[in-house]
Amino acid sequence: MHPNLQIRFVKPVTGPVTAEHFAIENAPVPAAREGEFVVRNAFLSLDPYQRRQMMPGVHYAQPLRVGDVMVGRTIGRVVESRHSGFAVGDWVRCSLGWQSFSLSAGEHAEKIELDGFAPSLYLGILGSPGITAWVGLRHVAKIRAGETVAISAATGAVGSVAVRLAKSTGCRVVGIAGGPAKCAFAVETLGYDACVDYQAQDFSGLLGRATPAGVDVDFENVGGPVFDAVIARLNQSARVALCGLVSQYNLSEPYGMRNIAELLNQNVMLQGFRVGNYEYCREAALAELKERLRKGEMAVQETITDGLANAPSAFAAMFAGSHLGKALVRIGE
Amino acid sequence: MHPNLQIRFVKPVTGPVTAEHFAIENAPVPAAREGEFVVRNAFLSLDPYQRRQMMPGVHYAQPLRVGDVMVGRTIGRVVESRHSGFAVGDWVRCSLGWQSFSLSAGEHAEKIELDGFAPSLYLGILGSPGITAWVGLRHVAKIRAGETVAISAATGAVGSVAVRLAKSTGCRVVGIAGGPAKCAFAVETLGYDACVDYQAQDFSGLLGRATPAGVDVDFENVGGPVFDAVIARLNQSARVALCGLVSQYNLSEPYGMRNIAELLNQNVMLQGFRVGNYEYCREAALAELKERLRKGEMAVQETITDGLANAPSAFAAMFAGSHLGKALVRIGE
Repeated sequence: MHPNLQIRFVKPVTGPVTAEHFAIENAPVPAAREGEFVVRNAFLSLDPYQRRQMMPGVHYAQPLRVGDVMVGRTIGRVVESRHSGFAVGDWVRCSLGWQSFSLSAGEHAEKIELDGFAPSLYLGILGSPGITAWVGLRHVAKIRAGETVAISAATGAVGSVAVRLAKSTGCRVVGIAGGPAKCAFAVETLGYDACVDYQAQDFSGLLGRATPAGVDVDFENVGGPVFDAVIARLNQSARVALCGLVSQYNLSEPYGMRNIAELLNQNVMLQGFRVGNYEYCREAALAELKERLRKGEMAVQETITDGLANAPSAFAAMFAGSHLGKALVRIGE
Repeated sequence: MHPNLQIRFVKPVTGPVTAEHFAIENAPVPAAREGEFVVRNAFLSLDPYQRRQMMPGVHYAQPLRVGDVMVGRTIGRVVESRHSGFAVGDWVRCSLGWQSFSLSAGEHAEKIELDGFAPSLYLGILGSPGITAWVGLRHVAKIRAGETVAISAATGAVGSVAVRLAKSTGCRVVGIAGGPAKCAFAVETLGYDACVDYQAQDFSGLLGRATPAGVDVDFENVGGPVFDAVIARLNQSARVALCGLVSQYNLSEPYGMRNIAELLNQNVMLQGFRVGNYEYCREAALAELKERLRKGEMAVQETITDGLANAPSAFAAMFAGSHLGKALVRIGE
């Protein structure tokens, strides 16, 4: 049997994430006692929220202490079970961290019926990122046909799902991404009507030309000056689904947002949201996402790094924007 | 008859408002032609939004051009009428600017049944400020018994109404105001449970002690660092009714808001709102406000400056926070 590779969080993060914040260990493969089961993980999900858990004094989700196995979600199969609800061979999504094997008595673990879909999708379009896209557009912003929707981090795990949902509603969808390659990918592969490069010198001008009728809904994943520029384009009674601020996570001092007055002038509704607070949306979200996947209407995009030992560098690279779609680490078969 | 004193806007505003932005003129008293009527104004309302109209390139409400009579609301009585809908003696609220006499063919004028209340109240608690307080708390933030409500510009025209509405719902109501005198007035006269002085050195600490259970609803009138401090106190699923940013109106560069991430972390809903977009709330708002006024549950507070010629200095002083409650200018009897 493979060893149980574990990646531990060993140093609080205040600036960019690097290898020194992690330690890699070979732990014994756990054995199930009565009421427990062991999952051999196939994929690890890399998510921006994980970095927040590494910051000193953060009160987001459960606390992570120095020395703990790094927080994260995995999907894998049960290899040993003494738990009546989980049988060998079951697919299980765990919130038990960056390790090859997860031991659970049922907590932080959820049995997944694959329903004909690849397991990795349950960490992406059929996991939190997909449900996040659905909640932000359908429940928070309530997009309508004919509206212009802006989506920052356009090619990320959430954005690559959100664009398809917004297009299905009949919206004009304008992405914001870093660099010409990502912008081309956004339009050609993901189906954005336009995608604006925030690294371009005349970003605000380009954004204006891409949104001639203004912006009715901003699905905000980035924050910082990019967000300020989008706010300047908001129409009366626009809605902002504030989902992430990834441009801010590696900064020791946050960017001071300038355009708050426009939220007042334009009668804007801004809702900060974390998908964990919208459990009641999950069933409707998954039903639509699966239906559209079956019809081939979604653009599934994954960036997969092989080997759990490479997770720290893949995680650091994610904040540099190296990935397209959902960032995953393949742990095993 | 008195002359028609008019105050004109003669210079765009980029910093503090001063006398040089206005010119005082004696114009002829207008005469009504067929279909018109003349109102002799009794009171002029001074409102922070008026300053925005004086800024270059602002797209808030109707445009104000250099040389125009300064924008503002008045209340007065019809002294001459050739209009079938308005009779001599009728009370009329006009949006026709800073002048002793208003001429109208029915536009920008609304007949007011005093219903036993003093005319000036129709520029304050029974006018936009009162309806604004109602919309922000009842419609936007949907306050509930037991919640903690923070109200900045606590002793202003809107705040002095909002506190009574929030108390009537059974909320803990914490004001924010400038200086110990206003804070004492807020607690002793307006009925705030506590009022925190934003000029105090340890403002954030004092705010924390005044909101031991955090803040569920922020009725935001001020913006800037005061708003950032309130955001840091927001509870999960808090609501921000963003009504004004008076601390920002005299700045050439806006304050860069730091705490946007907390809106995400705490699942906060922020709604920028201007009362003009909530006409459908007016009837319900006025019904409650009149009922509570009759029962003596409201704290009516007005700061009245005598003489229209003194309106510019009273307006400038308002931004320095010299007033309590509704700022008015008495034009005539």
